[in-house]
Amino acid sequence: MGCSEVDAETAAHSLIAADLSGVDSHGVARLSGYVRLWEAGRINVKPNIRCVHETPCTGVVDGDGGLGLVVAHYAMNLAIEKARNVGTGWISVQNSNHFGIAGQYAMLAAEQDMIGIAMTNASALVAPTFSKERMLGTNPISVAIPAGTEPTFLADFATTTAANGKLEVLQRAGKDIPGKWLQDEHGEISFDAEGLKKGGAMLPLGSDSLHGSHKGYMLGSIVDIFSGVLSGANFGPWVPPFPAYVPMPENQPGRGIGHFFGAMRIDAFRPASDFKKDMDLWISRFRVAEPIQKERPVVIPGDPEREARSQRLKEGIPLNAAVCQDLNSLAEKMGILPLF
Amino acid sequence: MGCSEVDAETAAHSLIAADLSGVDSHGVARLSGYVRLWEAGRINVKPNIRCVHETPCTGVVDGDGGLGLVVAHYAMNLAIEKARNVGTGWISVQNSNHFGIAGQYAMLAAEQDMIGIAMTNASALVAPTFSKERMLGTNPISVAIPAGTEPTFLADFATTTAANGKLEVLQRAGKDIPGKWLQDEHGEISFDAEGLKKGGAMLPLGSDSLHGSHKGYMLGSIVDIFSGVLSGANFGPWVPPFPAYVPMPENQPGRGIGHFFGAMRIDAFRPASDFKKDMDLWISRFRVAEPIQKERPVVIPGDPEREARSQRLKEGIPLNAAVCQDLNSLAEKMGILPLF
Repeated sequence: MGCSEVDAETAAHSLIAADLSGVDSHGVARLSGYVRLWEAGRINVKPNIRCVHETPCTGVVDGDGGLGLVVAHYAMNLAIEKARNVGTGWISVQNSNHFGIAGQYAMLAAEQDMIGIAMTNASALVAPTFSKERMLGTNPISVAIPAGTEPTFLADFATTTAANGKLEVLQRAGKDIPGKWLQDEHGEISFDAEGLKKGGAMLPLGSDSLHGSHKGYMLGSIVDIFSGVLSGANFGPWVPPFPAYVPMPENQPGRGIGHFFGAMRIDAFRPASDFKKDMDLWISRFRVAEPIQKERPVVIPGDPEREARSQRLKEGIPLNAAVCQDLNSLAEKMGILPLF
Repeated sequence: MGCSEVDAETAAHSLIAADLSGVDSHGVARLSGYVRLWEAGRINVKPNIRCVHETPCTGVVDGDGGLGLVVAHYAMNLAIEKARNVGTGWISVQNSNHFGIAGQYAMLAAEQDMIGIAMTNASALVAPTFSKERMLGTNPISVAIPAGTEPTFLADFATTTAANGKLEVLQRAGKDIPGKWLQDEHGEISFDAEGLKKGGAMLPLGSDSLHGSHKGYMLGSIVDIFSGVLSGANFGPWVPPFPAYVPMPENQPGRGIGHFFGAMRIDAFRPASDFKKDMDLWISRFRVAEPIQKERPVVIPGDPEREARSQRLKEGIPLNAAVCQDLNSLAEKMGILPLF
């Protein structure tokens, strides 16, 4: 596409990090989607990514329309640098694109004895409680918290009832949705995995108002405002869509997609060794919380990603035939040797 | 109880703020609960509240066992002061007690053109996904975000499917629970409003694993770690209970209850007027998101509290007979004239 070698490597690492973590929907399977965005003129391959407003512990980064994978690395590293200097760092990003999995950025801070926070807004697929209109993206939040002998606590989740990736799996399998994840165009619960294509909307975490969907709506809104409004990016229904064939929303109030990153040095609060000892206790205690079924223990946030990573580093990343085909077509288009 | 006049006034304002906002469960109805904690020797009425570790933008406050309502005000004001000086302020609090409604602290920052964040851990009533053990409190999160001509965006919610207050209302009415809010002591969904008293547990936001309860569990965990582990307070199953008759957990790793507060100056990111213009657009656009039922429009976070406040400032705060009786008993015990 014409990215610098450094940027191409950053982006490649970013996608492979998702595949290694078991989040196949956000890995190399997305590569052709990024290329289509570039073909549509919506990715600047030589961006001038820079901080346009800052204080010692905050800043707004202008991604200059670059690959979100590259812009987000820049911004998270800036948050970490600020935290190293003054205790915490907070960066809101405008004029970016999709950044892959949020967890990889939060983890960058955790590797430096900091708590890492990463979030992004995304194009509108989610209806607020009581509405049938798509107003929010799946707006994920990630928080990484270092421990001592225990592994890093890593939360990384969309603020919806179910992730879009789970829907796609059911669509491919031609199956119905097993729970209240979607509503149809009239606002009625839908179990049709194709429901989004038929004008439906995803539901905020909580599913319905009886089970607290207004809380999921508020969480998604907070992510949208921290990422979009605080930076001067787009927000709500105006966030640019990922599929290049979907037209841009009209009358956009901001620039590109927005992200938000935070880094807090542990020792800005307590000696890191004291904190880590308590985190080890937290994790080991939750690990043995009495399970409902003996064979299904409580999951420590980050365990599933770590297990996938450990297995895939040994055995390789399984790719399905459609993704291989897609990567081969991409290779052909780019004039390089087919991969498979 | 022997608090200073200033502290008593702070605490009284805090409880009345909850009643004015329509959150009756956290208002003066709780006063006798605080008094019972004091009688049990678990409230220090003359606390030496102080910052025991700090950087220009962070700090840990030791509440010295004081009333949470007083400690939390001190800590939030310190976060605001730090934000005024350097852009953001982040305070983790140890050795505190229950602090009432989270939203009142977040609002203190919003009144100063800052984004305000407040959260607290609480005694364990919630089971993590796949567990039947109570490991987390209802661990609320509040975020207040100022706007221009529109009112402040105020999110304030427990990280559970339903708030404890809603359960108490059903208990008093002798009704069943209308949704999946609780599980019984075996981990099966329970519709018994008395379920908590029978060894059950509240469910994290999401209700069950099919609807993302692991996300609610992760959110509650993040609140617990930011409030408890980062400060050196208790966390997880070791957080002190609010009812004075419930014995303290054994082998507590920390001191008292923990809170976490944040303040971010808007103009540390963008000129406040630009931000507020966009927030006005955000709010006005979400207000007209197409409703499912015409008579039930989308709710802007903070609207319900504002409407209650406006009505109650005019018409007064309705108190039920049991609360009046309770306050009268309290007056008698304290040797002051009965109130009603």
